[in-house]
Amino acid sequence: QRKFESIRANKIFETFVITVIIVSALLVGAKTYDMPSGFASLTLILDWFISIFFLTEITIRFLGEPRKRDFFKSFWNWFDTLIVVVSLIPAESTDLAIVGRLVRVFRVLRMISIIPELRILLVSLVKALPQLGYVMLLMFIIFYIYAAIGSTLFENINPTLWGDITISMLTLFRVMTFEDWTDVMYETMEVYSLSWFYYLTFIFFTAFAFLNMVIGIVVNVMEQ
Amino acid sequence: QRKFESIRANKIFETFVITVIIVSALLVGAKTYDMPSGFASLTLILDWFISIFFLTEITIRFLGEPRKRDFFKSFWNWFDTLIVVVSLIPAESTDLAIVGRLVRVFRVLRMISIIPELRILLVSLVKALPQLGYVMLLMFIIFYIYAAIGSTLFENINPTLWGDITISMLTLFRVMTFEDWTDVMYETMEVYSLSWFYYLTFIFFTAFAFLNMVIGIVVNVMEQ
Amino acid sequence: QRKFESIRANKIFETFVITVIIVSALLVGAKTYDMPSGFASLTLILDWFISIFFLTEITIRFLGEPRKRDFFKSFWNWFDTLIVVVSLIPAESTDLAIVGRLVRVFRVLRMISIIPELRILLVSLVKALPQLGYVMLLMFIIFYIYAAIGSTLFENINPTLWGDITISMLTLFRVMTFEDWTDVMYETMEVYSLSWFYYLTFIFFTAFAFLNMVIGIVVNVMEQ
Amino acid sequence: QRKFESIRANKIFETFVITVIIVSALLVGAKTYDMPSGFASLTLILDWFISIFFLTEITIRFLGEPRKRDFFKSFWNWFDTLIVVVSLIPAESTDLAIVGRLVRVFRVLRMISIIPELRILLVSLVKALPQLGYVMLLMFIIFYIYAAIGSTLFENINPTLWGDITISMLTLFRVMTFEDWTDVMYETMEVYSLSWFYYLTFIFFTAFAFLNMVIGIVVNVMEQ
Ligand code: NA
Ligand code: NA
Repeated sequence: QRKFESIRANKIFETFVITVIIVSALLVGAKTYDMPSGFASLTLILDWFISIFFLTEITIRFLGEPRKRDFFKSFWNWFDTLIVVVSLIPAESTDLAIVGRLVRVFRVLRMISIIPELRILLVSLVKALPQLGYVMLLMFIIFYIYAAIGSTLFENINPTLWGDITISMLTLFRVMTFEDWTDVMYETMEVYSLSWFYYLTFIFFTAFAFLNMVIGIVVNVMEQ
Repeated sequence: QRKFESIRANKIFETFVITVIIVSALLVGAKTYDMPSGFASLTLILDWFISIFFLTEITIRFLGEPRKRDFFKSFWNWFDTLIVVVSLIPAESTDLAIVGRLVRVFRVLRMISIIPELRILLVSLVKALPQLGYVMLLMFIIFYIYAAIGSTLFENINPTLWGDITISMLTLFRVMTFEDWTDVMYETMEVYSLSWFYYLTFIFFTAFAFLNMVIGIVVNVMEQ
Repeated sequence: QRKFESIRANKIFETFVITVIIVSALLVGAKTYDMPSGFASLTLILDWFISIFFLTEITIRFLGEPRKRDFFKSFWNWFDTLIVVVSLIPAESTDLAIVGRLVRVFRVLRMISIIPELRILLVSLVKALPQLGYVMLLMFIIFYIYAAIGSTLFENINPTLWGDITISMLTLFRVMTFEDWTDVMYETMEVYSLSWFYYLTFIFFTAFAFLNMVIGIVVNVMEQ
Repeated sequence: QRKFESIRANKIFETFVITVIIVSALLVGAKTYDMPSGFASLTLILDWFISIFFLTEITIRFLGEPRKRDFFKSFWNWFDTLIVVVSLIPAESTDLAIVGRLVRVFRVLRMISIIPELRILLVSLVKALPQLGYVMLLMFIIFYIYAAIGSTLFENINPTLWGDITISMLTLFRVMTFEDWTDVMYETMEVYSLSWFYYLTFIFFTAFAFLNMVIGIVVNVMEQ
């Protein structure tokens, strides 16, 4: 076991792991280009090597753990194990080809678990979320009410945008990002000429709630 | 009366109220989808149950109030009563069908009055508004002046966008959100080639006033 | 003179002045609508009344000043006098009709000079500007260099967007506001396939400079 | 040498240098306009004068340096020398005409090296960058993963937008700036009706990372 422990703590080993992660990331990117067929088989071999290497690495880390229970207490160990196991789905088989390629993409996420600074950053980002809980609930209520009104009044004008409450919420999110929102508005204004009031109040409410969210985060960060 | 008081304070009762509010919200959403006719009659029954339940609940809360006057001193009691009473408009009648559906949408707002944290959040948002009063007045003056200039100069170029001062203000709000604003500008530049100056100064002034508004809120929040 | 001083300080007089300013603002707005001809002559009479009232008011304020020199030391007195004098241009004459209407629009600005809070707000906004001087100069240099490169490389692709350095700066401002910027980019990428680098670096630099400007203002406000 | 030192420190000399830089900047701008042929030859002469003046100036500054080594220790001396030497490429020769014009554009950058305040501003901006290192790496990982997923799933729908991972990242940057992002989304939703989830999570993640970046800068500036 000590041998595994020393491997795990080895600086060269760690550098090598990061290198393999970067190679696997580059491989993911390279696959999106049109490649000559010779390159495709090289890709497959490289993919197998990475799969086996990751499996070995996680085994070493598991064996190198003094108390086996502690291994499963760490979120990041679960995270890595899941990514490694899931990306064992064969990439060659034709019917799972796309699934196989997609799960390999998530290997890039191992970049986060291997670099401590990124891990800390992500944890601090996630920790900031619950404080936003109620503002987000308020935002959702605003969206829900406006989407219900929108799909009641505007459904017959344009069912693609206002067909049901889910589509209406997507349309409202579009309005919130100011993406061609006047096209949406001008269309409904031809039937309901006062519907600009609907859009302007929606933009006002969501902008106000969003601003509050941002300020909430800033104040939280300041206090720490 | 003590009986009503104990019901009102009952944790199970409160949870049940929240459940009914959520059900009424889901019902509002479900109605925006195309439903089989059997579902429509179920919807009507459910709607009647919710109406009666809300009426009962507000009566209990009123009867459970030790001093009846205090009930009407609370803004949220007025708020709830209004929503409940207004949504008694029958949803079946064909000529009021849309009005009936729209007022039921506002039942979702009871989510805010029932959850104390949302109530506090909303109150603090509303309290922040008056401090913005003068910046918003300044913003309105900027809009008004530019809209007056715009509808004087550009009315003949595009009456849909610059027809009168109200429409011009809507067009300027569009410019402020950067929504296809260059289309608006290029059109007027064909006649008045220097009109880019009009748009750029407008964007500059409103952006500056908006920035000031945001900073004002941040500083206010910080001081508390 | 004491009489004028007491009029000037009179609360009722001040309220009346504000009322006339609001009426003149409403008149400016009303003129942008199509009016029956009877209304047009009423408008003219009202306009003459406002002109004379403003002239009288400024004369009272001048006569009410204990030391005449002090009157001209105040920026806002100059500001008001200029607006009042300039809007004496007759609105009826056909050849100056548009100029006459435009200068009357600026009467709305008297709203700022009459309300002390708006005056303070505007002064504090203007005072914040010089601190931004160097960031804005840096921003201008970025714009200038990119516009020079843009009109050198892309002029033949689309002279409407990249014809000379002034037009190019306008196009770059459009890119900075993210207004259909990909349309501009895709067009040049057909000739120079790497020109996305031009746009991305430009967006990065300006966003960074803009962010710095905002932070500069926030820090300044905080320190006060 | 003392003579050169006194020239270098001379206030009039410095003002003259700034004037020549501004002239060279105006010349860069003027060249983007269509000029009569007589002006073109004037331009060439002026260009030669500027080149020679800049060369002379940098020589004086070098000769005026008490210890010659110190000259090369300053980043800004390297910066100026590079710009001056590179813009010696003849602007007349037809095959290098565009390159010659482009390098002359960078003479405008000398504005930054000559004004101390701009130099300080730029240094402070650059110094703020490394602190953003990890957030930008996180942002890049998000972009990379989404681009890999995008070009795997959507390549057949629109190869212009999702052809390979580089193009996909450009498309995602476009989505991040909200530039006609719904057009991109609606197109993929016709095949994968749930692909709105892809776009909304992407927008959420990047907005969150971006917000964190901004807050990071604000907090850093505050602490100083
Ligand atoms: Na936009
Ligand atoms: Na757009």
